Amino acid sequence: MAEWISSRKNEQVKTAAKLGQSASFRRQTGLFLAEGARLCADAFTSRVRIRQFFCTEHAAKKYESYLTPILRAVPSFFITEPVAELLSQTEGNQGVFCVCEQRKELSWEAFPLRHCLAMETVQDPGNLGAALRTAEALGLGSVLLAGSCCDVYSPKALRAGMGAVFRLPVFFSRKLPDALDALHGQGFFSCAAVPDSSARPITEVDFSHPCIMAVGNEGNGLTEAAAAACNLRVTIPMLGRAESLNAASSAAILMWEMMRSGGISGGG
Amino acid sequence: MAEWISSRKNEQVKTAAKLGQSASFRRQTGLFLAEGARLCADAFTSRVRIRQFFCTEHAAKKYESYLTPILRAVPSFFITEPVAELLSQTEGNQGVFCVCEQRKELSWEAFPLRHCLAMETVQDPGNLGAALRTAEALGLGSVLLAGSCCDVYSPKALRAGMGAVFRLPVFFSRKLPDALDALHGQGFFSCAAVPDSSARPITEVDFSHPCIMAVGNEGNGLTEAAAAACNLRVTIPMLGRAESLNAASSAAILMWEMMRSGGISGGG
Repeated sequence: MAEWISSRKNEQVKTAAKLGQSASFRRQTGLFLAEGARLCADAFTSRVRIRQFFCTEHAAKKYESYLTPILRAVPSFFITEPVAELLSQTEGNQGVFCVCEQRKELSWEAFPLRHCLAMETVQDPGNLGAALRTAEALGLGSVLLAGSCCDVYSPKALRAGMGAVFRLPVFFSRKLPDALDALHGQGFFSCAAVPDSSARPITEVDFSHPCIMAVGNEGNGLTEAAAAACNLRVTIPMLGRAESLNAASSAAILMWEMMRSGGISGGG
Repeated sequence: MAEWISSRKNEQVKTAAKLGQSASFRRQTGLFLAEGARLCADAFTSRVRIRQFFCTEHAAKKYESYLTPILRAVPSFFITEPVAELLSQTEGNQGVFCVCEQRKELSWEAFPLRHCLAMETVQDPGNLGAALRTAEALGLGSVLLAGSCCDVYSPKALRAGMGAVFRLPVFFSRKLPDALDALHGQGFFSCAAVPDSSARPITEVDFSHPCIMAVGNEGNGLTEAAAAACNLRVTIPMLGRAESLNAASSAAILMWEMMRSGGISGGG
């Protein structure tokens, strides 16, 4: 049976709260905090390792069908509303949280030879999460996070990603050009997405071979070194104002076009 | 020369602040508050009617090239930092604001016979703004906001939309089925976007005629009445988890596909 915690000074609560707040603490511990009935249930069914589960009594009843399997399997604690408020990063908090282990870094040899989205120094966790969610929905093989992207395990990125990070293979690289060099050797070709009407329109690219689509930072785009390391510069042909596509929307269109026109290699 | 305002109780400041905070006050007055050097400059160059312009002395220097034309043409006020904080809806506020008139509602006869995105009861201002921005970038003819969508002139929607609402024809309708009936008579066909794998894949739809693509609320999708009023149910074919596309990303893919495969009618 779950224990009760009513103190905001409880050590486990303090650790969980810090995991919600601090990217460096998440990195240091290899843990993260998931919030919300749907996301916690998603972590559980996706076989993420859950260290502790916290919920209010109210939430345990309201989301019973989601949460009962977790309460049975994981060290669990009932918490009071003030404790839930301390843990929460959202406004209308549901009172449901779990402390989880981050996935082990995948070895470079495990890189699936299927279409991949590479993001370089994407800063907005909402954009990062949305792109991961779209990558999973459209059936890409993996996502590569390069440069200094925001933390994929931040509460906001997790929420926007709807748990995609629990299931989709995600790789990390400090330097995108180095990663591209290695991946070219594994049979990938690569495209640099640029807002430049002289680049090749994505409608004219052959996506029947496994492709890495590299997209850059929201304000500055790809670094020149990363764009130069790609096999091809590509662009989304637009009739309107060229600067007017946000990072998540342009990533969605780029991934869709890879999968639509080259679905076999992408989905196989 | 611009006057100085240092009091947060100044009537013009109070009105401007209320325009940033209250959707009903915006509706009642037909005005809105734009924030940020880029957005204010965008409003000015897009010929939005600006009633008052407010900026800090610091901002007037920092964004001089953007702001000098506005300062010359519009009733302007220098404000202190505390006043800027009162007006601001963002964290790192730039100290630049203008009170603008909302565009007059366009008459139904002015509806361009080109591809249109219809959104029914979309609730998140970030999604609404991002979809408008994408619609402008891809060159759609218009956007139709139906049911009870969030306010297109809210600070968050304006920010996500990057000023698209200043330029793109935006129409409003309480009931999407009624609007569709009228627009079918004007030569449009219509598609209901649904997350249903038995619907027609969008890759198999002929978009060579002007089309209204109807998308629904983030949680519940289109109302049954709206979906039934459309000529065709369509879906984005997905390999991954079907529920896993957010509203702005799926709208981006739907609009892209309309324009890609039926660009003549869309862009003409």
